[in-house]
Amino acid sequence: MRPRQTDTGAGGTSPGVGSFPASTSPLPEPSESILSTSRFHTWMAAHRAEQTQDVQRIPFSDLFGWDFVPGSGDLAHESGRFFRIEGVRVEDDGGPVRTWTQPIIRQPEIGILGIAVHEVGGTTRCLMQAKAEPGNVNGVQLAPTVQATHSNYTRVHGGSPVPYLDLFQDPPEDRVVADSLQSEPGTWFDRKRNRHMIVRVGPEVEALPGFCWLTVEQLQELIAVDHLLNMTTRTVMSCLPHEWGTAPPEDVDRVHRWLVRRRCERDLRTRYVPLSEMEGWRRSADAISHDTGAYFSVVAVSVRSASREVPGWSQPLIQGHGLGVAALFTRRIDGVPHALMHARAEPGFLTGAELGPTVQCEPGAQELLPPEHRSPFLHAVLNASSDRVRFDTELSEEGGRFLNTHTRYVIVDADGDVREWERPGYRWVSVREIAALMREGFRVNMQARTLVAAWRGRW
Amino acid sequence: MRPRQTDTGAGGTSPGVGSFPASTSPLPEPSESILSTSRFHTWMAAHRAEQTQDVQRIPFSDLFGWDFVPGSGDLAHESGRFFRIEGVRVEDDGGPVRTWTQPIIRQPEIGILGIAVHEVGGTTRCLMQAKAEPGNVNGVQLAPTVQATHSNYTRVHGGSPVPYLDLFQDPPEDRVVADSLQSEPGTWFDRKRNRHMIVRVGPEVEALPGFCWLTVEQLQELIAVDHLLNMTTRTVMSCLPHEWGTAPPEDVDRVHRWLVRRRCERDLRTRYVPLSEMEGWRRSADAISHDTGAYFSVVAVSVRSASREVPGWSQPLIQGHGLGVAALFTRRIDGVPHALMHARAEPGFLTGAELGPTVQCEPGAQELLPPEHRSPFLHAVLNASSDRVRFDTELSEEGGRFLNTHTRYVIVDADGDVREWERPGYRWVSVREIAALMREGFRVNMQARTLVAAWRGRW
Repeated sequence: MRPRQTDTGAGGTSPGVGSFPASTSPLPEPSESILSTSRFHTWMAAHRAEQTQDVQRIPFSDLFGWDFVPGSGDLAHESGRFFRIEGVRVEDDGGPVRTWTQPIIRQPEIGILGIAVHEVGGTTRCLMQAKAEPGNVNGVQLAPTVQATHSNYTRVHGGSPVPYLDLFQDPPEDRVVADSLQSEPGTWFDRKRNRHMIVRVGPEVEALPGFCWLTVEQLQELIAVDHLLNMTTRTVMSCLPHEWGTAPPEDVDRVHRWLVRRRCERDLRTRYVPLSEMEGWRRSADAISHDTGAYFSVVAVSVRSASREVPGWSQPLIQGHGLGVAALFTRRIDGVPHALMHARAEPGFLTGAELGPTVQCEPGAQELLPPEHRSPFLHAVLNASSDRVRFDTELSEEGGRFLNTHTRYVIVDADGDVREWERPGYRWVSVREIAALMREGFRVNMQARTLVAAWRGRW
Repeated sequence: MRPRQTDTGAGGTSPGVGSFPASTSPLPEPSESILSTSRFHTWMAAHRAEQTQDVQRIPFSDLFGWDFVPGSGDLAHESGRFFRIEGVRVEDDGGPVRTWTQPIIRQPEIGILGIAVHEVGGTTRCLMQAKAEPGNVNGVQLAPTVQATHSNYTRVHGGSPVPYLDLFQDPPEDRVVADSLQSEPGTWFDRKRNRHMIVRVGPEVEALPGFCWLTVEQLQELIAVDHLLNMTTRTVMSCLPHEWGTAPPEDVDRVHRWLVRRRCERDLRTRYVPLSEMEGWRRSADAISHDTGAYFSVVAVSVRSASREVPGWSQPLIQGHGLGVAALFTRRIDGVPHALMHARAEPGFLTGAELGPTVQCEPGAQELLPPEHRSPFLHAVLNASSDRVRFDTELSEEGGRFLNTHTRYVIVDADGDVREWERPGYRWVSVREIAALMREGFRVNMQARTLVAAWRGRW
């Protein structure tokens, strides 16, 4: 495989956990015009140096405002807001493990994830933000214009108002480029959904400090840099219109019906269980972990920040174990880009299986599964010849919920006869059909949406 | 308003609770050809007389195989299957009551609701079933070809195999007329969804005893008979193709985005609470009821039946209080039928608000609400002049879960300027757009789907 691109920006190489050196270097001025890519990297490096966050693992007993609820043992904020770590029992008639319990994030509210775009001289520029999140690799990553939980915009934590939020609250219909509800990763979130918006704005909107304008083409280039575009940017980018036009409704219906069948064949049933009643998980002073050491842990951190809305706080985070792989095999069929999608069931999905990438797994955990339940295509990803690899980048999960948790995203040209790739649960789906399914929401999972965003411009 | 049509079939007038007289009258022979409507009524009456069910209210302590789970007080079957009555806490920032608890049915499995259709000489005939359910008004109602819960087809209760189920398991793509997941009523069901299927079959499929062939036009006529077509028939009928063609995807998008906005503005958040911890509800020996006597109760019944898969059983049922009203105001706009849809939030919906009828409420309970939260159109329904009423029929909720619970369904011509009907949360939606939204599922609620089925042929 070809070497991965890495962040070419100077500085800002601090780890996600630990102390960031304070910086006195001046930030570039915010600008209304589009930043050149090299200037962007300087700007980003400066923000990484400026927005220092000191993130430290702490014992649960040192969490401020968070506690284990008596009785259930759920980990919750005293206000009842933000999010909550609960237990869930999953029943999976069709899987290798018929039933299990696990911790899950519960945050039953709809956040707004939005990019403001402005068309100027035939170019679309996007208003982006350098945003620090405690769990981010590199501390600061590139976020969309707005990334607001309901708690954020009702200001439960007493922070400052969210800049630009008004652009996304009740915009005129003709300014809305995209507006849909999409799922969060169903392995970790219980029925969480966020509103994904792309809204056209006028020239009067200026980039505040910490924000910059970049073109869609620049974002397409920057998504290939390790740990630069945050998860929210990627998932909103996946909703941008593309040049491949609209799929006929009957074609979309066919894919949708196939997905309905898959939803019925492999339906994960979940029910709440108190966090203290999970089987196979144990809580120590500073982590809730699986007995095998696999999967992920729930941990706690304290955060001191110079620039975030609130000067300092503590919170739980999820820490993934092992580097995941999410890969899409793609090829043109009748001239149109197609991807081999896998109908994936994840415990937290609202309506059942969604289209996931061809491969989405943690290679280490695959070894533990019986062969018939392993990804049939992982080997083909890991052994793809470099001339077939179109994209290969490590990207982070959301830094507000995950600590240094990341995935290697890969796009590979599929060779040979398309029919040889067909397996039960896998289907070639065109970029047009994917776009149509995404407009409806709850059809394409988060990992596939990151890959759809990366696919753009690499068809 | 015009007088409602009533069941013209002889006999079969027994109440849903109580003893049905046994009958020795011979049933008409099953027939491959289409039953005439008058012969259908005779056939139905005979089945009502034949499929006697003795349904008796019993105390919870007499339930066999069902019990209140120690600790939570949830009402569950000892096998862990079928369904379960739990509590749910609802938070509703935008409603007249900010938070409440209520019992809810939990049945996290996907049932198959299917109609087999056969095209013969330009006519589409549908394979229908006379089906007894313990909660049905009139005991027996007309059901689709298949109405199988997951428990049914995995035969948890040890009953007979479900006839015709194989027609709906993995049919060839080109035989599938409709296949989607749709919501159950969100007031009573927690995140329940069923697979709605219409599948084309060949002439080799014959009507078994208890089944008959009827045309789509006959079903359109029979839906106007009180308590004849069961809820499942109505909701599957709503998925039949119609003559108004396909809406352009951009029009469907516009309606969908409007619904997304409404979902975000009025998002009901729910979480599980043990049934024994509900506030304002009390459990007596034979009912769980609200302190005010309003809404609904959870009760228990014993059922003795000659013809059902299992000779006798007992189970909990929900008993609604008061006659609900579900009404659709319709009119043509630019020659195309439109309905005034209301984006309705119900606690059990999976993805948020769905399109409901113009009016969906229980008139008695409306009086208890502050004026700004009452339906703005209920008065217009109750006072519609008879020449504007296209449909007015009392129909039952699902008899396997609800005891004698029914709703008056009304379709009324809207007069005056269409813009005068517009209110926040209401929108004129064309029959084409509704059909497109229904193909995706979780967009149009159960009550609206019954009205869509009744609207057909009454455009």
